[in-house]
Amino acid sequence: MAKIEKRSLIREGKAKILFETNQKDFIIQYFKDDATAFNAQKKGSIKNKGAINNAISSWIFQTLGKSGISTHFVEKLSEREMLVRRVQIIPVETVIRNKAAGSIVKRFNLKKGEPLSPELIEYFYKSDELGDPLICLNHIFHFNWASPEEIGEMVKISLQVNGLLRKVFEAVGLDLVDFKLEFGKDAQGNVILADEFTPDGSRLWDLKTGESMDKDRFRQDLGRVDETYEEVYERLRKFFEGKV
Amino acid sequence: MAKIEKRSLIREGKAKILFETNQKDFIIQYFKDDATAFNAQKKGSIKNKGAINNAISSWIFQTLGKSGISTHFVEKLSEREMLVRRVQIIPVETVIRNKAAGSIVKRFNLKKGEPLSPELIEYFYKSDELGDPLICLNHIFHFNWASPEEIGEMVKISLQVNGLLRKVFEAVGLDLVDFKLEFGKDAQGNVILADEFTPDGSRLWDLKTGESMDKDRFRQDLGRVDETYEEVYERLRKFFEGKV
Repeated sequence: MAKIEKRSLIREGKAKILFETNQKDFIIQYFKDDATAFNAQKKGSIKNKGAINNAISSWIFQTLGKSGISTHFVEKLSEREMLVRRVQIIPVETVIRNKAAGSIVKRFNLKKGEPLSPELIEYFYKSDELGDPLICLNHIFHFNWASPEEIGEMVKISLQVNGLLRKVFEAVGLDLVDFKLEFGKDAQGNVILADEFTPDGSRLWDLKTGESMDKDRFRQDLGRVDETYEEVYERLRKFFEGKV
Repeated sequence: MAKIEKRSLIREGKAKILFETNQKDFIIQYFKDDATAFNAQKKGSIKNKGAINNAISSWIFQTLGKSGISTHFVEKLSEREMLVRRVQIIPVETVIRNKAAGSIVKRFNLKKGEPLSPELIEYFYKSDELGDPLICLNHIFHFNWASPEEIGEMVKISLQVNGLLRKVFEAVGLDLVDFKLEFGKDAQGNVILADEFTPDGSRLWDLKTGESMDKDRFRQDLGRVDETYEEVYERLRKFFEGKV
């Protein structure tokens, strides 16, 4: 591949900025320190989050890639920049829940931490304007947000990712409680994992203390937000160093 | 069947009261004039609603029964009382939408009245405490609210009811925009239609004027609430008289 050069800004999101490059099939994801919650009603920033999330996502995408899961990851370019394949984003997110936490607790009056076994998959429509509403297969197919084949792939990948990452996080003393995934279609129409995998979009509970080691510290003002992101980074760095 | 005698109250709901009878497999539904909206945050009453809804539900259940759709309806006992088979209520409601109206408009930023073709089916969890949340098949099966076979029956019946009732309402100058159905399992485990079919649980728009001829008049303070229920009753009375 010819040397990658960053070109014009495509879109600035809540936690990342996307840039064109000199190669039409590749774009750059720049990870920001900005943190938002409750559909951006709460705003702040977390020290080094951009660098931490870029590193964590890079390790995880590489690990998943080695296990045969296609992702948009190409390479980590710099502390806060990741080169990814350009995809057409599918406007449906999956949320995989191993235990009850977050919105589902209130929605169904569950006990926080209650195991959901086997894991429960939910679908959400990617729309800041609508507040990412919960959707069902009926909605997805009715409004042509994704085809049955694409959803089939997304579910398959979601379950594989869960199986692999539960073990990874367990190895560093973290309980993978839930996480969301985003997907895109590559130039050939293949469904591949896109976006990121970070403590912003997952719930990670310390296996010994049960403490939240993720963006819930920011959402719920639990304190030690910067330190927690750093701690998750450090645990994963020790685990992945030499492996990916 | 031996003469039915009303016995003790089983449960008082927002619009109906259920009573035991002297026959264990049969109960009485008493239709109240009470009207509620927004999960009972708004309360009032609609003149003669109990009698009107009992009559409308009775006609509709009889009509559906003649077309081979099993319902809990046995007979209309009095102005406000309906004898029904005792069923075990399935805690999942279906909502069948032929056009966008109500909650879905805001949820997905649709145009009110936008056709949803083919009809869109949604599932809601019957829970006053939780505000009847939207649910998906994943939730239904995960929490054992209904089996795949039961949901299959519910969907089949929902589509049949829609096909039949769109024609009935069209014949009386009303557009069947959407409606909700509740289901129960009889002593043999068969899934049958339960509860009621009334302007409380459906949206009926006048085919000429587009005006709401249903509980939205109460919900949205559109005026002429009592008169509208009476008007729907009269139109259906003329249609059904001599037919059922």
